[in-house]
Amino acid sequence: MKVFRSPENPIIRPEDVKPSREDFEVIGVFNAGVARLADEVLLLLRVAERPINKNPQVVLTAVYDVDKGQVVLKEFSKADPENDFSDPRLIVRPAETFLTSISHLRIARSKDGIKFDIEDKPALGAANEYETFGVEDPRITLIDGIYYIAYVAVSPAGVTTCLASTKDFVEYKRHGVIFCPENKDVALFPEKIDGKYYALHRPVSPLFKKHDIWIAESPDLVCWGNHRRLLGPQKGGWDELKIGAGAPPVKTNEGWLKIYHGADKQNRYCLGAVLLDLNKPWKILARTAQPILEPEADYECSGFFGNVVFTCGLLAEGDILKIYYGAADSAICYAELNLKDVITALRH
Amino acid sequence: MKVFRSPENPIIRPEDVKPSREDFEVIGVFNAGVARLADEVLLLLRVAERPINKNPQVVLTAVYDVDKGQVVLKEFSKADPENDFSDPRLIVRPAETFLTSISHLRIARSKDGIKFDIEDKPALGAANEYETFGVEDPRITLIDGIYYIAYVAVSPAGVTTCLASTKDFVEYKRHGVIFCPENKDVALFPEKIDGKYYALHRPVSPLFKKHDIWIAESPDLVCWGNHRRLLGPQKGGWDELKIGAGAPPVKTNEGWLKIYHGADKQNRYCLGAVLLDLNKPWKILARTAQPILEPEADYECSGFFGNVVFTCGLLAEGDILKIYYGAADSAICYAELNLKDVITALRH
Repeated sequence: MKVFRSPENPIIRPEDVKPSREDFEVIGVFNAGVARLADEVLLLLRVAERPINKNPQVVLTAVYDVDKGQVVLKEFSKADPENDFSDPRLIVRPAETFLTSISHLRIARSKDGIKFDIEDKPALGAANEYETFGVEDPRITLIDGIYYIAYVAVSPAGVTTCLASTKDFVEYKRHGVIFCPENKDVALFPEKIDGKYYALHRPVSPLFKKHDIWIAESPDLVCWGNHRRLLGPQKGGWDELKIGAGAPPVKTNEGWLKIYHGADKQNRYCLGAVLLDLNKPWKILARTAQPILEPEADYECSGFFGNVVFTCGLLAEGDILKIYYGAADSAICYAELNLKDVITALRH
Repeated sequence: MKVFRSPENPIIRPEDVKPSREDFEVIGVFNAGVARLADEVLLLLRVAERPINKNPQVVLTAVYDVDKGQVVLKEFSKADPENDFSDPRLIVRPAETFLTSISHLRIARSKDGIKFDIEDKPALGAANEYETFGVEDPRITLIDGIYYIAYVAVSPAGVTTCLASTKDFVEYKRHGVIFCPENKDVALFPEKIDGKYYALHRPVSPLFKKHDIWIAESPDLVCWGNHRRLLGPQKGGWDELKIGAGAPPVKTNEGWLKIYHGADKQNRYCLGAVLLDLNKPWKILARTAQPILEPEADYECSGFFGNVVFTCGLLAEGDILKIYYGAADSAICYAELNLKDVITALRH
């Protein structure tokens, strides 16, 4: 697969983003939703922050306090054997788990799709009991003139997916939890098919150790049902451990083109593609055997969580797939693939 | 709490149920849905079966084969160290998990609610890729003259809840998966509230180790959204480990009365009650501190999975709650509680 990576990569780095508070630092900017708004490319960035910590004896993190209506700090002693810090993303205690960072969503705008102006303030941040550990990984789908944002909300209640909508990326409406725990990687189709909305989602089955992509239908984008399992990991493949919907599906003459992510047993995240029937999107027409984008550049191999390329959005313009992706859970990168190359890879 | 247990308990035992095949044996009949149909009490029994096994070197189980359209046998060597039989319900292998039995749903009818005639053939059995390990724990709700059956479907894709409907318990319509993995203990409310259907459900959050009861709304009983967390385990209580919706909610003057099950850290299952606001069922008005029914009788303390009382259905008739419940995952029992006693317990 011929991949054009921007020589400006990473196009947005943590140091480009102003922290939401003076006592916080930005440790990652990644997994952005993408939309075209008039003559601009708009990114809805996931910005991960943590409190600036001057005490090496503790790990400091931040949690949204529903009663106080604000983010408060929490401190965990490194000397306490009940605090498990082995996963850099988590603080695991016997009866509780916390995240080491809290994410919010931030807008960035660009005329050329490469150089972005990043707003100083969050667009959407933790605001209720389902979001106390932050909001993550927005995926934007334009449907009938409204931008719908499916985003991950994390709290002690579980990992859920919520829906927000906006016409202008200035005012937002929240529609609540649309997929209950544990579910993320939700990507809405951009139009109704035979009178129904469709979404891809990624529920977790702990008993059967499954992380498969499912498809659901809806009359209203809020209530989802008739869930069908669509796609599982490929045994021995680059996506053997788990998979999830990447960018929202793109309509092509050949079918719905779906870029998805997969991880192997070493937690190396790559992107692949699958083609779904235009009228029956629960039917798989083709799937790439090999990744179409994999961690190769330094900025993809090293970072907060290395060996990761992960997309929440792309622009399909002409014959080009303009992919915005998170690299190593640290920074935003840009790559172009030729649509025909991807279709050819799907056919073989 | 004054509990009247039927002196006929268990009212239905495994030996009362004819196996669905000559080479199978019934190992449990429990967790039945309940409906009143004209002058009869109808139970939709969960019947758990396994192949009769004459070889002590192996564990034999049965799985529905989608391609063959029938249940086939599977054999697991006791000598193979990769087969973990430590949970009597499961065969756990490094990359796969199987159940030691396969369940189907069977009808039993009674004039007096105690002596039941049990049909010879299954009413609903494994029939598609979501049900290959069987169908379990039906909960019946009568809505506008149609009996809706929310039942658990188990397969390698995960533990899901599916919906079926019937007018007569002769012909059934399947409506697909209404709650995706991992979700069970789904109980539908018997009427719309402010124009929407409601259901209680019990998703699982492996990351945060949660087994809480949530409430969702729907326009059509198939698609569910606006999920809200309703009720969690009580720290140090009889329901400390996990909880789940028991019988479908009962409308009372005081609010929606919901009998639920909870397990403590020793996996001892009891029943408790919670009262929900009539017009805003996501609001909890009261909750019993102590169980209203707990395993005390021999048939509740010993069996396939001992120390369990578990209900999927009850009849609220006059001032009496007529509770049908599974005892020790083995047999069906019957108990009566006085509605006023339960309301009084809720108030204190």
